[in-house]
Amino acid sequence: MDVSGRRQRLIEEIQSTTAEALVVSKPVNVRWLCGFTGSSGSLLVLLNGPMVLFTDGRSEEQAQLETSAAGVEVEMVISRTNDADIVDRLRSLGTKVCGIESHHLTLDRANGLAAAAPLVAFEPIGPMVDRLRQPKDAGEIARLRQAAAIADQALGRHEAVITSGGITEQAFARSLEASMFDLGADALSFDTIVASGPNSTRPHARPTDRVLTPGDLVVIDFGAAIDGYGSDMTRTLAVGADPTNDQQALYAAVAESQAAGVAAVRAGVEQVEIDTACRDVLARHGLAEAFIHGTGHGIGLEIHEQPILSARSVGILPADLVVTVEPGAYIPERGGVRVEDSVVVTSDGCDPITHFPKGLVPWLSLPMT
Amino acid sequence: MDVSGRRQRLIEEIQSTTAEALVVSKPVNVRWLCGFTGSSGSLLVLLNGPMVLFTDGRSEEQAQLETSAAGVEVEMVISRTNDADIVDRLRSLGTKVCGIESHHLTLDRANGLAAAAPLVAFEPIGPMVDRLRQPKDAGEIARLRQAAAIADQALGRHEAVITSGGITEQAFARSLEASMFDLGADALSFDTIVASGPNSTRPHARPTDRVLTPGDLVVIDFGAAIDGYGSDMTRTLAVGADPTNDQQALYAAVAESQAAGVAAVRAGVEQVEIDTACRDVLARHGLAEAFIHGTGHGIGLEIHEQPILSARSVGILPADLVVTVEPGAYIPERGGVRVEDSVVVTSDGCDPITHFPKGLVPWLSLPMT
Repeated sequence: MDVSGRRQRLIEEIQSTTAEALVVSKPVNVRWLCGFTGSSGSLLVLLNGPMVLFTDGRSEEQAQLETSAAGVEVEMVISRTNDADIVDRLRSLGTKVCGIESHHLTLDRANGLAAAAPLVAFEPIGPMVDRLRQPKDAGEIARLRQAAAIADQALGRHEAVITSGGITEQAFARSLEASMFDLGADALSFDTIVASGPNSTRPHARPTDRVLTPGDLVVIDFGAAIDGYGSDMTRTLAVGADPTNDQQALYAAVAESQAAGVAAVRAGVEQVEIDTACRDVLARHGLAEAFIHGTGHGIGLEIHEQPILSARSVGILPADLVVTVEPGAYIPERGGVRVEDSVVVTSDGCDPITHFPKGLVPWLSLPMT
Repeated sequence: MDVSGRRQRLIEEIQSTTAEALVVSKPVNVRWLCGFTGSSGSLLVLLNGPMVLFTDGRSEEQAQLETSAAGVEVEMVISRTNDADIVDRLRSLGTKVCGIESHHLTLDRANGLAAAAPLVAFEPIGPMVDRLRQPKDAGEIARLRQAAAIADQALGRHEAVITSGGITEQAFARSLEASMFDLGADALSFDTIVASGPNSTRPHARPTDRVLTPGDLVVIDFGAAIDGYGSDMTRTLAVGADPTNDQQALYAAVAESQAAGVAAVRAGVEQVEIDTACRDVLARHGLAEAFIHGTGHGIGLEIHEQPILSARSVGILPADLVVTVEPGAYIPERGGVRVEDSVVVTSDGCDPITHFPKGLVPWLSLPMT
C-alpha cells in the first residue's frame, strides 16, 4: 500500500477548492491518510508541510508506531481538547478558509469550531477523502482478496453443520468467526448474520438461539478483515442438503439475478445498470416486490462505502473499486435467499474475489476452488 | 426494563424547550426509546400521538418485532429517503420548531433538513436523550450485572494461559471472547485488549501475534454485552505468576489508586473527586505523569457514555449510574498496569458489579467470588 502518496492526491483536490486546509475527522479517513487506527484523533492537512495529527495521550505511542510503519511524516499534537488546538493552529497560520468533513462532523462540533475561530470560514467539503479512497491500489486489493479468501475457507469448514443442522444460529456464527480468526483474520468486518427458517426473511437478522433444522434455508452473511480491509459475502444454504422444489426455484431466481448483476459490472457503465440487471431477472420471476434492498456497495476500510449500487444510483462506475453484488428475495411464506460476491471492477468486466461455490448444497454440487 | 415509559420522560424534557417535536437520529437513542436495534432509522417524537419510526424496507420486519417486544407503540414509515419523509411529516403537522440531536447529526444532514423545510426551525438540542439514558432502571442494571458476571467467569477460565504463557495476544483475546459467547454473551461490548510486555504501555493496544511470555505484565481489558448493555473490566496479570518486585510495586500503586477511586464514588459527589482520588494516590507514588488517561466513564447501551470521569469533569454524580473506575500507569521501561471495575452508583457509595479478584496473581492470592 502506498500510504505516503495519498496526501499529495488530497492536496490536489483541496487546491481545486477555496480551502487552504482540511480538518479530517472521520477515523477511517485519518487511517487512510496516515496509518493511525485510533478512534479519537483529527488530522489537519495543510497545503505545505507535514500533516498534523491531534490526538490524546492514550494514543500517542500507538500513533507514533502506526504513522511511522505507514511511512508517513506526521506532526503530533497531544492534548485533551483537540478541536481547540486545531483552532489555535489555524489562527497562528492565518488560515482564512478551512474545509471540514461535513458528512461526518456533527453539527455541534462544526458550530464549536466556527464559534472558536470567527475569522476562519469553515467550508463543508463533504466526502472528498472518501472519494479518493474508492479506487484501491494493489496493496489494498491484495488485503481485500486475503480477507475474502479467509471467509471462503471458513465457510468451507462448516459443511457438517449445514448438512446436519442441530446447532443454534448463534453457535454457528461464533464457530464461523472462530474459523476466520484461526485462518488469520485481524477482525470481523461486520456482525455476522446467520438467519435460518423464518428468520431468513429479515435481511439484517441477528443470530438467535434458533436451532438450524433440516428443511431450513439459512442465509449466512459475514466477513473477515485484514489491516482494516473487510470482506463481504453471502451464501444461502439448505440445512439437511435436501431443498424443496420451491426453495430451489427461489434460489435459482436469485442466483440468476446475482449472475446477471456480476455480468453487468464493468468500469465505465452507469452504476444503476448493475441494479437494473439484478432487478429485471427477479421481476421476470415475479419477485420484484421481494427484493427489498439495494444491489451492492463498495467495500474497503468501511464495509459500506460509496458507490451504493441501487435503483437510485447516479454516475459511472470507475475502475479498481471493489463492490458487492447481492440481490435477495424475501417472502414470509417461502423464506429468504440472498447471494453475494465481492468483485474487483476492471476495464473489461470484473474479477470476483469471493470464490465459494454457489448452490443450495455447494459441497455436493461443486468442488471448492 | 420499562421501555414504554421512556417516551413520557422525554416529552417532559422536550416541553421544557421551545421545540414541538424531536428527531432522534442516534441509533442507541432510537433503541432506548422504542427497542429497534437497527443501524438505519430515525425516530420522530411528537408531543402527542405515537412516535414515528422512519426506516427502510430491509429493517421493516425487524422493527415491527422489536418495537412490539419492547411494548412500544410506533407508527412505521418505510422508505429510502427518511429525512425527506421526516420533513414531509413536519410540514403536514405545521411544526414550527423541531429539535435535532446536534451532537450526533452531521452538518450535512442538518443542512439538508433545514434546506428542505425552510419554515421549520431546527433547534440543536444535543444529548437530551443521552442524559435521560444515564440513570439505569432495574432491568438495565440486571443486564449490566449479567454482562459483568460473564466477563468475570470468562477470565476465570484462563488461569492456565496466564500461568504458563505460550499463547499469542490474539489467540488469548479470541479464547476469552469465545468463553464469553459460550457463557451467554450476545456480543462483545468493545474490541478486546490483550497487551503484553512492551505492548502493555499502550492503553489502546490491539492484540498482536506477540507470545505471552513468563515475566510479562499483561493488560486485559474486555467486556460482554447482553441486550446491548456492555460490561467493561480490566485486569493486569503477571504471566508466569512470578512478578518482579518492581512489577509488584507498580501494580500496588495502581491498585491503591483504583481502590481510592471506588471509595470516592457516591451519588451527590462532584464527579471530579473520583479522578482526584485516583490521581492523588498515583502522584504520591511518583506516577502522576504515568497516568495518561481519564479515570472512568458511564456504561450502558454505549460503552463510553456520560459522565466521563476526568480531571475536567464538571457536575455532580447522580444515583443509579453504572461507571468504570480505571486508573493506570504506563512507563516504557517498566510496563503498563491498569485495573478497572464497573460499579453501580448508590446514595451511600457504590456497588461493584465486577467481582474478579485483584492481584497480579489473583488465582493464587484470592478465591474466586
